Amino acid sequence: MLTDAHLHQAAAIFGTPLYVYDAAELDAALERVRDAFTDARIWYAIKANPNLTILRRMQAAGLGFECVSPGEMARAEKVGAAGEQILVNGPAKSDAEYEAGARLGATFILDRPSEVALLPPGSKVLIRINPGLDVSTHDHLATGAAGSKFGIRPDDLSATMQALRQADHSLRGLHLHIGSSVRDPADFGAAFARIADLRAVTGALEVLDVGGGWGLDADLHGIAARARAAAAAFGAQLWVEPGRYLVARAGMLLTRVMGSKSTGRDFTLLDAGMTELLRPMLYGAEHPVRALWHAEGSLVSDLAGPACESGDLLGRDVSLPAGAVRGDLLAVLDAGAYAAAMSSNYLTRPRPAEALWDAQEWALIRRREGVEEIWAAEE
Amino acid sequence: MLTDAHLHQAAAIFGTPLYVYDAAELDAALERVRDAFTDARIWYAIKANPNLTILRRMQAAGLGFECVSPGEMARAEKVGAAGEQILVNGPAKSDAEYEAGARLGATFILDRPSEVALLPPGSKVLIRINPGLDVSTHDHLATGAAGSKFGIRPDDLSATMQALRQADHSLRGLHLHIGSSVRDPADFGAAFARIADLRAVTGALEVLDVGGGWGLDADLHGIAARARAAAAAFGAQLWVEPGRYLVARAGMLLTRVMGSKSTGRDFTLLDAGMTELLRPMLYGAEHPVRALWHAEGSLVSDLAGPACESGDLLGRDVSLPAGAVRGDLLAVLDAGAYAAAMSSNYLTRPRPAEALWDAQEWALIRRREGVEEIWAAEE
Repeated sequence: MLTDAHLHQAAAIFGTPLYVYDAAELDAALERVRDAFTDARIWYAIKANPNLTILRRMQAAGLGFECVSPGEMARAEKVGAAGEQILVNGPAKSDAEYEAGARLGATFILDRPSEVALLPPGSKVLIRINPGLDVSTHDHLATGAAGSKFGIRPDDLSATMQALRQADHSLRGLHLHIGSSVRDPADFGAAFARIADLRAVTGALEVLDVGGGWGLDADLHGIAARARAAAAAFGAQLWVEPGRYLVARAGMLLTRVMGSKSTGRDFTLLDAGMTELLRPMLYGAEHPVRALWHAEGSLVSDLAGPACESGDLLGRDVSLPAGAVRGDLLAVLDAGAYAAAMSSNYLTRPRPAEALWDAQEWALIRRREGVEEIWAAEE
Repeated sequence: MLTDAHLHQAAAIFGTPLYVYDAAELDAALERVRDAFTDARIWYAIKANPNLTILRRMQAAGLGFECVSPGEMARAEKVGAAGEQILVNGPAKSDAEYEAGARLGATFILDRPSEVALLPPGSKVLIRINPGLDVSTHDHLATGAAGSKFGIRPDDLSATMQALRQADHSLRGLHLHIGSSVRDPADFGAAFARIADLRAVTGALEVLDVGGGWGLDADLHGIAARARAAAAAFGAQLWVEPGRYLVARAGMLLTRVMGSKSTGRDFTLLDAGMTELLRPMLYGAEHPVRALWHAEGSLVSDLAGPACESGDLLGRDVSLPAGAVRGDLLAVLDAGAYAAAMSSNYLTRPRPAEALWDAQEWALIRRREGVEEIWAAEE
């Protein structure tokens, strides 16, 4: 647990805006996953947080890596992952991804029937199924919906398996991912039930990969029980691909108050916004916050970033202690996933530094950019 | 006009995804603005496209720069802008912005009454007014709405002017910006009318800055006539701050088809998506496209990027020539503004290269990133 003193110290050492991570919570999240998904093989979805220090911890813990770009494969390789520890996923893989996957001996997740013709010779393959579900989460994240771009239709499975066999590729199993931040175990249960119907087509399989997408407050044991039963029906080993679940709670975005104002609404102005943390603007994500100043009363305001866009808000109608002054620290919580990873140089803003607390001291795991670095490729 | 042959050549030289710009259209857009806003002073809003080559062209054309971050001020300085050519805008300016503005002798746009106390001694100031309008455009862009975070309320103007005088700052005029991609000249007229009411408070002013926010198909002459009348009522010089209007039409995102597929919908898969062009996902922006393959029939599909997010679409229900094959080129049009500027390294994807056609040859104005550059700050 990072105390106010820890956070003040980090801001003083590294400046703000700053991403901070608590190694103890990284470990605790992995422990929760292992406790629920006993015997499952765990693949970390790099996209949630690709920081090399985070990846090295995942590698040391024995996790594999789910990669969705040549860059993510290069990261996995850089931290020492072998081909057997790399899954190559994505709906529109490039030639570079196929070449790197073949060189490493990685396993490919096949996303459409016509992808068979693009696979390198002798590929190891999981077939991604589009379960065609309605999922109780945000539209942007409903990757398992019938109209999403992911996976093949169950009706195409038999022909796709035949094409793989004819091309001498090796089918290891099936894959599905129904969405992100899904809370209701029944959604997973419905998807797994639909997969189970495919047993008649596939016969026994080596692997059933049920992806990730678990909400931070999801009932992991409930999901795991359903997943385990689904895998057992195929005689398969269960694979899971958590990303956000493993890192979100461990991270915070530390930002300083720049002032406050009232127009038709009340605003607390921050030194971080959409360029540091895009999720509230992009997905309507609501992040809890923790104020590091203290007062008796409280005030409700919107948390506004420095960008010249009216949508540049990190929160709406947020209750904070009254009396914030310029320089006060605010921590935006649950910001370890899809946070630093999605930061940008829009407005020529340097991407924030990142620091890790390992129960002993702060370590800088990503240094703050300088403006010259931002335009270096333009000179 | 960039021909198919030009675009094939650019893709062959520089690879895809690639931003390409046509210098002739950059010049034409500026000419349209000058033709409509005769005698107005033009400030380029750097955030629309901060590429140094673009900025050098704007500087050579005699434009000033509207800056919303220390990084944008550093860019303006780098291309040779003096303090008189720099406006410092933003709702939550940092100490670094005040210091750089003071050093350069720039003009500050004051965004809230309490900002007076933060201004460096002897600052030159425009006061940004929140006109409290309902604007007929997307919620994210309605920067002039009463509930937006921008500007001061008209009721606070008198006290703010007094505070500026008491602190020995110099008020040059008023500023307003009502939104982005606004098409209806009546929206501008309504905002200008509200500003005109403030003449009784301000007396004559040196400057009336009416911002930008003109839709690409807006009636510039109609807007300019209203703006000119508003400025005249203050005895003021008219200033304008176009960003998108000056660069959007000149730019295209060149992307290659990676394949096609059908789930519950039909998709054309591309090698570019939300990481290269965020506007469709973030704002629901609809960009016209131009296919560089040819066929008799046509097919309607969604344009899906390579990211593992169901919202990673560059277009929905887009009609394209039938029969696209892997490697075919597609140009996403009107992509010169808030496009490359908002690209990110999410998914460890290198940001695209940018190239400029100057009627003679292609010039690389931003080289493609390598993956090692993406993680350099983490080592």
